[in-house]
Amino acid sequence: MSSGSNGHAPGAGALLGILRSGRPRTRGELAELTGLSRSTVSQRLDGLIEHRWVVAGEDSVSSGGRPATVFAFNGGARLVLAADLGATRARLAVIDLGMSVLAERTAELSIDQGPEQTLGWVAGAFQDLLSAAGRDLSQVCGVGIGLPGPVEHASGRPANPPIMPGWDGFAVPDWLGARLGAPVLVDNDVNVMALGEHWAARPEVDHLIFIKMGTGIGCGIISGRRLHRGAQGAAGDVGHVRVPASEAPCRCGNVGCLEAVAGGGSMAAALRASGIEAEGSRDVVALMRAGDLRATRLVRQAGREVGTVMASIVNFFNPSVIVIGGDVAEAGEQVLAGVRETIYSRSLPLATQHLGIRVSQLGDRAGVMGAAVMVVEHVLAPDTIDRIITK
Amino acid sequence: MSSGSNGHAPGAGALLGILRSGRPRTRGELAELTGLSRSTVSQRLDGLIEHRWVVAGEDSVSSGGRPATVFAFNGGARLVLAADLGATRARLAVIDLGMSVLAERTAELSIDQGPEQTLGWVAGAFQDLLSAAGRDLSQVCGVGIGLPGPVEHASGRPANPPIMPGWDGFAVPDWLGARLGAPVLVDNDVNVMALGEHWAARPEVDHLIFIKMGTGIGCGIISGRRLHRGAQGAAGDVGHVRVPASEAPCRCGNVGCLEAVAGGGSMAAALRASGIEAEGSRDVVALMRAGDLRATRLVRQAGREVGTVMASIVNFFNPSVIVIGGDVAEAGEQVLAGVRETIYSRSLPLATQHLGIRVSQLGDRAGVMGAAVMVVEHVLAPDTIDRIITK
Repeated sequence: MSSGSNGHAPGAGALLGILRSGRPRTRGELAELTGLSRSTVSQRLDGLIEHRWVVAGEDSVSSGGRPATVFAFNGGARLVLAADLGATRARLAVIDLGMSVLAERTAELSIDQGPEQTLGWVAGAFQDLLSAAGRDLSQVCGVGIGLPGPVEHASGRPANPPIMPGWDGFAVPDWLGARLGAPVLVDNDVNVMALGEHWAARPEVDHLIFIKMGTGIGCGIISGRRLHRGAQGAAGDVGHVRVPASEAPCRCGNVGCLEAVAGGGSMAAALRASGIEAEGSRDVVALMRAGDLRATRLVRQAGREVGTVMASIVNFFNPSVIVIGGDVAEAGEQVLAGVRETIYSRSLPLATQHLGIRVSQLGDRAGVMGAAVMVVEHVLAPDTIDRIITK
Repeated sequence: MSSGSNGHAPGAGALLGILRSGRPRTRGELAELTGLSRSTVSQRLDGLIEHRWVVAGEDSVSSGGRPATVFAFNGGARLVLAADLGATRARLAVIDLGMSVLAERTAELSIDQGPEQTLGWVAGAFQDLLSAAGRDLSQVCGVGIGLPGPVEHASGRPANPPIMPGWDGFAVPDWLGARLGAPVLVDNDVNVMALGEHWAARPEVDHLIFIKMGTGIGCGIISGRRLHRGAQGAAGDVGHVRVPASEAPCRCGNVGCLEAVAGGGSMAAALRASGIEAEGSRDVVALMRAGDLRATRLVRQAGREVGTVMASIVNFFNPSVIVIGGDVAEAGEQVLAGVRETIYSRSLPLATQHLGIRVSQLGDRAGVMGAAVMVVEHVLAPDTIDRIITK
């Protein structure tokens, strides 16, 4: 058995980690695993039980003698509120610490009405969802929010988000935390989607790239099972990578950006130019599904353009899995075929030999599940638990 | 104080970690920091002293009473042998666990003579270096080797290395370990160079990309202060990324690869085509230094080509620092200007705002220092120490 690497005795958080990742344990087993005395183990278990992180029961398979008391992770007792807010839609869920979804809903919601109106609605909708699940705010230990723009993760404040007027620098955690009485974590949508897909794909994936293809195009990156946010939290911003041989104007002011040739807006514009009614990526996918050949060709070509940019990134990053999500991913095989075609023809054989390229398993739930994962990992981090439970 | 996150009591390795990262400590301080009893602390310190990882002394600044015994990391007692093997050159060093270089040498060495002849020479050269430093093999606790080709890091075996005939699958750690009596770690040259530069740039850099520009072009990647090797250990292999608008044939069999337009071999070939004598990247840089305008233009353009590929990668990865190393980096400002020119014009402002782009601080010592860092971090990992010292 190895020992604690940071030089401190295992606290309540470490005990919880053992119970969370495995089967229920007796006091004696926990003392043996940690090197702590039985009395210290008991004292820490008392704290965990008092805060309802752990539940005590009898071991029914114990053979002979009186049944031993076993201690188990109590995933159902405490709750997380998770929201994935898009430009025009929101998905909210009440999820327990064992990652079971107790209640969820989607709604139309314009993020451009500003933070107070948007978050006010979110706070109310969370309370309604809690009531629907027969639970209340006192059981909530954290709130996770995904936003459709850059976020300074440490402070939870949006940073110059292009499609979120009024949100720049707004203290989302303070405002929402005051109303919900729990810590609030915020990150951008692609990062939480990557966390969600990584959770769904566990445990075998070390390095994952999640590509959101919608109005915008961006990546969430997992390196060594951890989110790679980059030096300014800007990692994954591939939407404005220059695509060779294109002079298409982009909404960012440059020309030839990936978004300008493969974003939902550019596909819809191309359809409108041929007299076909289409507003955004969802319309393009709907037209494709209805058999429109022009829409099908556009989606396939968008996949190729994304694949061309990702081909270099596959050589650089050597991911285990690439997951395509966002509205355009609902085009399924058509977009996947385009992405695969260019990555397999342009990336190195060693990097593509075992590379999985697939559509999101969680679909439009990736963001809300990832927002919950972000909170659960924070709330159950040993340091967090130790700060709550006096040793 | 936080507690051990993996649920086990702090062992000798954890105590060593405290001493290594800070000032010398008394028994009482160590007991307080770890939550261990003073007798357990004493027992673990005895083991560390016996193995010479730790040294005991008197605290000279102790005020009043008799001086307290303090315990300190004994970085000078044990040694690492490190070698950076290139296609035609080798650099070897004897380095202690505090990362002081005790002896070093460079030599011409053809890696294509195969593993036994090459490594036999390396083993002999290490023994000579040890003698020169007045030390011997009994003090060596690990050996680190950087090789100029892909390596399966877990086994230390080269994997289809293109310029190393006879090395494919050769068990470098077994062969060399049997001769030197210490564990041997092996990785490819760009990975150890990245480790070396990250060590030199510490502590502020979380995300670093090291680009080696020589005959070949490749990256070593640090994400969250850890080496990102990728799913097949192939991360950083950007030499065969397709460059727009080039049809130059590459030694890999494809056309338009980055190496085919910016590698040392292609620059030398371009000079030879104009009747100028040049064999590889070192000749190109030497010609540039001698004032040859054609060589200068080639180096500058190579920087631009590398910058064009890296511009997308900067958007994707958002590194804190990009370090240019390898032979071509000796061209200094000329190559740097080319790389900067394209990255700053093509990457997103947020990702380049605080981005450092510079030439290697360690120069041609980056590889050998990084090979030592790889071994020191392994040898002093708490789990490793705990396995050696019975708890």
